[in-house]
Amino acid sequence: MLADVELAKSYRLLNHGPTVLVSSAAAGRRNVMAAAWAMPLDFDPPKVLVVIDKSTYTRELVEASGEFVLNIPCRAQAEQVVRVGSESGHGRDKFASSGLEPLPARKVGAPRVAGCIAYLECKVVLEPHNQRQYDLFIGEVVAAQADDALFSDGHWHFDDDPAKRSLHYIAGGAFFATGEAFSV
Amino acid sequence: MLADVELAKSYRLLNHGPTVLVSSAAAGRRNVMAAAWAMPLDFDPPKVLVVIDKSTYTRELVEASGEFVLNIPCRAQAEQVVRVGSESGHGRDKFASSGLEPLPARKVGAPRVAGCIAYLECKVVLEPHNQRQYDLFIGEVVAAQADDALFSDGHWHFDDDPAKRSLHYIAGGAFFATGEAFSV
Repeated sequence: MLADVELAKSYRLLNHGPTVLVSSAAAGRRNVMAAAWAMPLDFDPPKVLVVIDKSTYTRELVEASGEFVLNIPCRAQAEQVVRVGSESGHGRDKFASSGLEPLPARKVGAPRVAGCIAYLECKVVLEPHNQRQYDLFIGEVVAAQADDALFSDGHWHFDDDPAKRSLHYIAGGAFFATGEAFSV
Repeated sequence: MLADVELAKSYRLLNHGPTVLVSSAAAGRRNVMAAAWAMPLDFDPPKVLVVIDKSTYTRELVEASGEFVLNIPCRAQAEQVVRVGSESGHGRDKFASSGLEPLPARKVGAPRVAGCIAYLECKVVLEPHNQRQYDLFIGEVVAAQADDALFSDGHWHFDDDPAKRSLHYIAGGAFFATGEAFSV
C-alpha cells in the first residue's frame, strides 16, 4: 500500500542513489523518461536535482508545466526503464509504447507511474542558468509516497522480494539491484 | 592495481549512485568528508555535482583551492566513511582520527584516500550562486582511475569480493552494498 512519507524524510527515498523515472505533463500531453542523474539537494524544505537533456520531450513538458514526478522503479520494471530511457517521446506516447501505466499524482499535474515503489512530486525551482547551461533542474518536493511494505520509519526494507528492489543504472542495459543492507 | 579510466567514460564510476568521500587540501591543510549527494552532470568534458555544506571544513578548503577529489570507498571502509561523515574537520585531522591514509593525486593538490576503489580528480567550475544558495559544487573531472580488478572496459565487476563493493548510504550508519548485476 502507498503511504505518505514525511517531507523532511523524503530525501531518504533517493539517498542511496537509485535510478528514477521522470514523468511530466503539459497541455494534455504526457511523457516518461529514465534518469540515472537525480539526487537530493536539501532536507527541509526538501529539494532534488535531476538532469534533463535539451533533446528530450520531457524537457519541453517540464519547462511548460514547472512540475515533474520522480518515480522510483523496481527490478520488475527494468525492461520498461530501459525502453523509456532509449526511445524519444517526440511523436510517441511512451506510456502506451512501454506498457507503463500513468496514475494521477496528488499535488502536481504530472502523472505518476504505476507499479513504482516510491514517488516524489516536485515543483521546479526556476534557475534558468542551470537549466540552459547544464540541463540541470531543481525541484521542491511537495508530496512523497512509498510502498509501506518497502519503506517505513524512514528506511527502505528490501529484504523480502528481489523483484521489488530499486535499480542503479550503469549503461547499455546493465544495472545493479540495490544490495545487502548493513549498519556500522 | 589502479588504472586510468578514459575521461569520457568516467561518469560510469558514479552512475550507479555510490556514496563518496570528498578529499581536499589548501595551504598545507587537508580534509576528508563523506557525501551521499554526488552524481555525474555531463559526459564530455566530464562534470560532476556534489553538495558541500557551508558548515564543513571541506567547504573552506575547496573554495580556497578550487579542487577536490571524489573517492569511491568500498564496504571494507564503511566504518571510516561513517566516522568522517559525522565528525568535523574543524580543528581535527580527520585522516589521522579515522585511520584513512592520504595519497598524492595526479592532477590536483587535494589528496586521494588510500584503499578506495576509484578516484575522480576535479577542478571546481565556479558557479557562485549555486555554491552560496544551494551548497552545490560543479567539478570538471581532470583525471580518473579505478581498481582494474573491479572496473574494466567501462564497467564495474563486483562479483568476486563483497568487501570491495561500493556503498549507498541511507542514514544513521545504515548502508546498502551495491547488489547483483543484471542486464535486460
